[in-house]
Amino acid sequence: MRVGRRYRFSASHRLHSPLLSEEVNQELYGKCNNPYGHGHDYVLEVVVRGNPDESSGLVVNVSDLDNLVRRLVLAGYDHKYMNAEIEAFAQRVPTTENVTRDIWGRLQRGWSDLGGKAQLDGIRIWETRRNLVEVRKSR
Amino acid sequence: MRVGRRYRFSASHRLHSPLLSEEVNQELYGKCNNPYGHGHDYVLEVVVRGNPDESSGLVVNVSDLDNLVRRLVLAGYDHKYMNAEIEAFAQRVPTTENVTRDIWGRLQRGWSDLGGKAQLDGIRIWETRRNLVEVRKSR
Amino acid sequence: MRVGRRYRFSASHRLHSPLLSEEVNQELYGKCNNPYGHGHDYVLEVVVRGNPDESSGLVVNVSDLDNLVRRLVLAGYDHKYMNAEIEAFAQRVPTTENVTRDIWGRLQRGWSDLGGKAQLDGIRIWETRRNLVEVRKSR
Amino acid sequence: MRVGRRYRFSASHRLHSPLLSEEVNQELYGKCNNPYGHGHDYVLEVVVRGNPDESSGLVVNVSDLDNLVRRLVLAGYDHKYMNAEIEAFAQRVPTTENVTRDIWGRLQRGWSDLGGKAQLDGIRIWETRRNLVEVRKSR
Amino acid sequence: MRVGRRYRFSASHRLHSPLLSEEVNQELYGKCNNPYGHGHDYVLEVVVRGNPDESSGLVVNVSDLDNLVRRLVLAGYDHKYMNAEIEAFAQRVPTTENVTRDIWGRLQRGWSDLGGKAQLDGIRIWETRRNLVEVRKSR
Amino acid sequence: MRVGRRYRFSASHRLHSPLLSEEVNQELYGKCNNPYGHGHDYVLEVVVRGNPDESSGLVVNVSDLDNLVRRLVLAGYDHKYMNAEIEAFAQRVPTTENVTRDIWGRLQRGWSDLGGKAQLDGIRIWETRRNLVEVRKSR
Repeated sequence: MRVGRRYRFSASHRLHSPLLSEEVNQELYGKCNNPYGHGHDYVLEVVVRGNPDESSGLVVNVSDLDNLVRRLVLAGYDHKYMNAEIEAFAQRVPTTENVTRDIWGRLQRGWSDLGGKAQLDGIRIWETRRNLVEVRKSR
Repeated sequence: MRVGRRYRFSASHRLHSPLLSEEVNQELYGKCNNPYGHGHDYVLEVVVRGNPDESSGLVVNVSDLDNLVRRLVLAGYDHKYMNAEIEAFAQRVPTTENVTRDIWGRLQRGWSDLGGKAQLDGIRIWETRRNLVEVRKSR
Repeated sequence: MRVGRRYRFSASHRLHSPLLSEEVNQELYGKCNNPYGHGHDYVLEVVVRGNPDESSGLVVNVSDLDNLVRRLVLAGYDHKYMNAEIEAFAQRVPTTENVTRDIWGRLQRGWSDLGGKAQLDGIRIWETRRNLVEVRKSR
Repeated sequence: MRVGRRYRFSASHRLHSPLLSEEVNQELYGKCNNPYGHGHDYVLEVVVRGNPDESSGLVVNVSDLDNLVRRLVLAGYDHKYMNAEIEAFAQRVPTTENVTRDIWGRLQRGWSDLGGKAQLDGIRIWETRRNLVEVRKSR
Repeated sequence: MRVGRRYRFSASHRLHSPLLSEEVNQELYGKCNNPYGHGHDYVLEVVVRGNPDESSGLVVNVSDLDNLVRRLVLAGYDHKYMNAEIEAFAQRVPTTENVTRDIWGRLQRGWSDLGGKAQLDGIRIWETRRNLVEVRKSR
Repeated sequence: MRVGRRYRFSASHRLHSPLLSEEVNQELYGKCNNPYGHGHDYVLEVVVRGNPDESSGLVVNVSDLDNLVRRLVLAGYDHKYMNAEIEAFAQRVPTTENVTRDIWGRLQRGWSDLGGKAQLDGIRIWETRRNLVEVRKSR
């Protein structure tokens, strides 16, 4: 059984790779290459896998999960300018793919703090209603 | 090929486990432990697996599926107070996990009434826009 | 200029009028007349009218508005069974119309606690995606 | 890692199978069998699989993907009457299942034009908010 | 107090005016001028004005309203090709503006069948998520 | 008759007023006061008033309206950092209220370029799903 829970955060970023020329940056990222950055309202879905506990009927204690996600992810991302305020983007471009990779790593590294038997199964991130990135634990 | 179809039902429940103390109930379920209950507008997605029929182009006859889901699930859940009116919750807490387990069981037990070759593949239930539970047939 | 802000609450109710016969109740409210009640996820939009302050650029201090709405409305409605837990429904049926009337009264009576120059302009309540009730200050 | 991108198109169709009698057509497709046709606003999600490129942080160049989908799918489907204007439906009924099969074939046949390493992983098509068909590459 | 209720219908149309040249038609309506037509999933919101009845707490009997709208509007529009099947479009182009005008007229002419004191206040029609037409009773 | 049309733009901003102390800025705008800024996906609805043209059935030529809004508003706002790139926010805080005031002014000043008889009636801007600002022409 999988349980998904959604979170929102608003953040800004600039898509620009130091490994590419100005021309390629401009062509590749278009208006997302604007030097001043721009922003989005991201939706993060954290998917947990497990069996409901017999006495509580829950796969995961929701307020514990909320606290974990707030501490590991939202505290660092919500209302931030990714390029300047998130270490993962000191060298990497904050595309939705790399944002997903960073958030996935944060959750994997901190997951054991949650306690309990529920496993982290995957995450989905919508940058806008049109764009979605998903990563799932390989089995 | 998978075909999903969505249904809605409104229901109320109280999250309270007789196997846990008052204090743990209060801590675990918070305001969902309110003795008078509260309610939600649930969305149920039934996912069917199969190949489209050569002459009809359909994996499943949609009005047959609707009738089956109405009879097996919606008739019992829509506009009901789960704790008092649904047998599965005489002993179990009506968390979304246990609601999913009960609906999944109802669909599996009654599926053969549908006739045809389409297989039941899984279900997804959204309690609110933030919470989702999914179960899929293991293969 | 009007500023709208949306809140959500989950609650349950039973539509049954002591002024009407069992038969009329059943015919009028249909499955909403179920004795055990059922529930919804309500959306409340509070609409404020005013001019943005020259220094802050705001019509209303949003965290003050949130606190007011939480205290006057959400604390009483969220995760409650309206018929038993909200005084306004001791005698009246908790239809969306009467819920709107009660919430509108609460906001009007408590509005001056907000301070500032912003006026309460109206409210909108969605019981489900299909049903909406709106009330606006007559001028 | 999977990347999804959504597109919209508006189209009309009539559900009617030449392989079935008038009566069966009427019973099976109901009001969708109306001889004059009717229409929907379809949502297409194209799902791509791959690893983000080290320098660009992208799994797929989004404007290249958009151009491919526009050329292979949207140019043929958007604002069209499927039964008369799309070859795949000269013999087959334009159910969502068959629409999915046709679009899946178009994307598979033309995918190599995209260049790069990203693989086509699957597609999802919503005919309305209630109906969804999904197909994924078998591995 | 205003009460809104939403309905959905799927229909197809072709935007083409016999009063304009081929060139102007093509320029004005673009791909909506496609001779075979195309379709949309329309949302209709009917807005009613009145005071809630003291005993029922309702501004309007919802199932009576549903029946009226079904008979006056949905029966004629749902799953239809407007240009050929709706009389109002024998001479007029089925733009959202003209669809709104026709539906508004149908509701005004048939409103007295509803009985009761609730007044028809206005309608809103979304052709897609991006396009909305609204008409309200002038006072 | 009113016709609404929706546009989207993504932008970033920082809420900080030079007319207020650091403490008041921090208290008033909370995390929106973050020096690096943050972003949102804005929705703009432009509402036009008029009667449908007898031959075209349209209140306004939609592609002309789109071009006008693109030139007057979206070209300046989409994928921009408001504080540094939009002149209106050199002195003023880019709250949704002030964004609305600026966009309203741009549309009023440039409206006559549209030609035709349709009047600008109002605009609505959603900063997020929870926050909305509306301004309408006073009559």
